[in-house]
Amino acid sequence: MKLARSDRGSQTRELLLATAERLFAEYGVEGVSNRQVSEAAGQSNNFAVGYHVGSKEDLVVAIVRPHAASIERRCGEMVAQLPDSPGLRDWVSCLVRPAVEHLASLGVPSWYARFIAQATTHPTFRRLVVGEAFASRSFQRCHEAMFRLVPLLPEEVRRERDDMGRLMLVHICAERERALQEGTASPHSTWESTATGLVDALVGLWLAPVTARW
Amino acid sequence: MKLARSDRGSQTRELLLATAERLFAEYGVEGVSNRQVSEAAGQSNNFAVGYHVGSKEDLVVAIVRPHAASIERRCGEMVAQLPDSPGLRDWVSCLVRPAVEHLASLGVPSWYARFIAQATTHPTFRRLVVGEAFASRSFQRCHEAMFRLVPLLPEEVRRERDDMGRLMLVHICAERERALQEGTASPHSTWESTATGLVDALVGLWLAPVTARW
Repeated sequence: MKLARSDRGSQTRELLLATAERLFAEYGVEGVSNRQVSEAAGQSNNFAVGYHVGSKEDLVVAIVRPHAASIERRCGEMVAQLPDSPGLRDWVSCLVRPAVEHLASLGVPSWYARFIAQATTHPTFRRLVVGEAFASRSFQRCHEAMFRLVPLLPEEVRRERDDMGRLMLVHICAERERALQEGTASPHSTWESTATGLVDALVGLWLAPVTARW
Repeated sequence: MKLARSDRGSQTRELLLATAERLFAEYGVEGVSNRQVSEAAGQSNNFAVGYHVGSKEDLVVAIVRPHAASIERRCGEMVAQLPDSPGLRDWVSCLVRPAVEHLASLGVPSWYARFIAQATTHPTFRRLVVGEAFASRSFQRCHEAMFRLVPLLPEEVRRERDDMGRLMLVHICAERERALQEGTASPHSTWESTATGLVDALVGLWLAPVTARW
């Protein structure tokens, strides 16, 4: 059965997105050109990315969007099942577990955690990724609820700990994703235990006393 | 005055190391060949890295070594000035401040934090970097002293939090280094305040209660 033109186009687009995600995860978003993505995806037309997806920025957003939608769906479900008067740990769980469970659902090898680690090192792409991945409705809601349960912090410290939490989540997941692919992950660890460890650590981070410094 | 052959050789070597550090920081250690380093350093001989430094592994070690020596010296001095019966925060400070102060001493732009962030994503280079940068005598001493003041943790959790602490230190410094270069660092933040924030966060991380999971 011959595929209709639009089906073939959509398959090519999927192939380009998957190829770009892997290459960006390995070599960084800046280190890989749209032309290299087209070539690695076996497209004879070097402008396949431009034709099927658009600019590098469009490509980054197109990679993030389906992952972000899956995480947002899981987050919404988790929020709906929260007990009455959720505590700090409950809200932190809602910020951590949906992303970690989504990564677990991708199987081995997956590239998304490393893609996010790479994309967030670049100011433009970071803005795009944060806009897509961390600005969802449920995520925002959990974030705000979490802050209401954290002792009052100077704005600078709050922003700093937000960065620390994001870096810890992204890079612990990226290291685990890499270790799973290379067969070097600890045999005792699972994505589930990784999530539990991250929740404990983030609760400790947010409750840590602040040394005066200004 | 003409330089003696060995002086010229040593200058070329320094230039190659500085060029490699910058390129590795920007594009990853795997993403840059020794040939590209030689070219970017303006060497007509494409094998200049091989001649003056050696393999890619030798290059990584040669970049780390002088930074690690400076950090180790600062760490030794800080340990020598510790009060009697130092507390957890004192030992964590000795693990964080020497590295952060060293980065501050490099001026803007520096590349070392981003170089470490990149090099530690690769299993072989990570082993080399950790061997050079995190295995120094004073660093080991502080690390062990810190563990004696942390509540008893399951081995798996201890290793996990060690990873989290390393990732937080490395990536917070790498982000700050990048923001300083791009002029986007918060006007309120200094390397000194970054170190204080990291010490508070790491103390919180190590003291965080552990949820049972096995």
